[in-house]
Amino acid sequence: MKRCAAQRPFALDVNTGPLGKTPEAEMRFFIEAAESVSDLPLLIDTSNPRAMRAGLEAAKNRVIINGFSLEPRKLELILPLAREFDADIVGFLLYPDSRVPKNEAERFEIALELMDRAEGAGVAGERVIIDPVVPPLAWTDGIAQARAVLNVIRTLPEVLGFAVRTIGGISNLGTGAGDKAKRRLLEQSYVAMLASAGLSFALMDILDPDLVPSARVSGILAREEIFSWAMVPGP
Amino acid sequence: MKRCAAQRPFALDVNTGPLGKTPEAEMRFFIEAAESVSDLPLLIDTSNPRAMRAGLEAAKNRVIINGFSLEPRKLELILPLAREFDADIVGFLLYPDSRVPKNEAERFEIALELMDRAEGAGVAGERVIIDPVVPPLAWTDGIAQARAVLNVIRTLPEVLGFAVRTIGGISNLGTGAGDKAKRRLLEQSYVAMLASAGLSFALMDILDPDLVPSARVSGILAREEIFSWAMVPGP
Repeated sequence: MKRCAAQRPFALDVNTGPLGKTPEAEMRFFIEAAESVSDLPLLIDTSNPRAMRAGLEAAKNRVIINGFSLEPRKLELILPLAREFDADIVGFLLYPDSRVPKNEAERFEIALELMDRAEGAGVAGERVIIDPVVPPLAWTDGIAQARAVLNVIRTLPEVLGFAVRTIGGISNLGTGAGDKAKRRLLEQSYVAMLASAGLSFALMDILDPDLVPSARVSGILAREEIFSWAMVPGP
Repeated sequence: MKRCAAQRPFALDVNTGPLGKTPEAEMRFFIEAAESVSDLPLLIDTSNPRAMRAGLEAAKNRVIINGFSLEPRKLELILPLAREFDADIVGFLLYPDSRVPKNEAERFEIALELMDRAEGAGVAGERVIIDPVVPPLAWTDGIAQARAVLNVIRTLPEVLGFAVRTIGGISNLGTGAGDKAKRRLLEQSYVAMLASAGLSFALMDILDPDLVPSARVSGILAREEIFSWAMVPGP
């Protein structure tokens, strides 16, 4: 985690994985470990509401709740924590049963519904960071889904009427890939497309020596106003 | 040229560079050399109208004229060759004095003007392949220009009312770069963004071992309907 923090990402994602019998204590352990090496914001990445609350209570750094969806349990037990702890929260474009929407139109409907639910819980839409859920390309319609995700990122600010922030997990794309070199090539290209579509945050292995320079260069091309060769990170 | 053809690009760009006292004979030499190793379509890439005509007369392969702009000499002497030889022709988004337009709006105006001129010369708009002119990032406004080019590629079919084809020269982007590794990283990211914006053809060194796999993978992500890991080229 120290090596991660040294790369100066925007934030660290604290993903505990499956928790045991004492989820609160386990989460506290992870939060303390992260904060002992870094003052970066922390994404608390768990679907366990008890662990989420324990993390929010324990954290001294700024936190982002990762995250909620239309799943009833998350609407009931996770979403209200964003108001209680005055935190940003990631909202996944998934159906209540965690199915992935089929196309762009369905994703827009879900995004509007997520924003309604957030506002209903006293959480301003501007606190919600939308995760359009990058699909594995190995799915039958993976490539159409990957393209739909790009279009959703590009169009969502217009649909919602404000400059909504978005987040995407890059590693999902290559799930099922046999070949590491091919996977790397696909991820590098797709991260550039995501940046160009306006993605705010890319969730990735900050120690990946190929993907991180690609993501940084793509971010410069997509977002910066001034360019100098010195800005481009060495690969 | 044989090694280039073996990589099976869509076409070969025959760029003669500055021509001497017998431009026709020189162009014929290049065309014959290309056709002796390949039956691929040839872009004839010269600003010399005499050499262009000689190339069109000599070629047996399918040819694409590269290209014309609003420059009076090109409108007068190059554009009519597209009708005479029933060939596709590249049209550059440049002012008559070869200045680069400042923004997207200016590029759209020039594209509409190019289409008017083409149709006036009996060349259907569908025969024109638009080159929005990739800028060197080292320009003061290089990064804004590079982004404008992406938006123009994305929006041009809507502005013109048909699925216009586009072409972009990738190597222009890194003009002025000192560092080869940085240049490569930028080109790989930008080629993915171009593909995602809908670019039809990327003009590049087909022997570049880094950029070509990136371009191919980006093309798959942007254009294919079906994905399999076998489609992804080895880097």
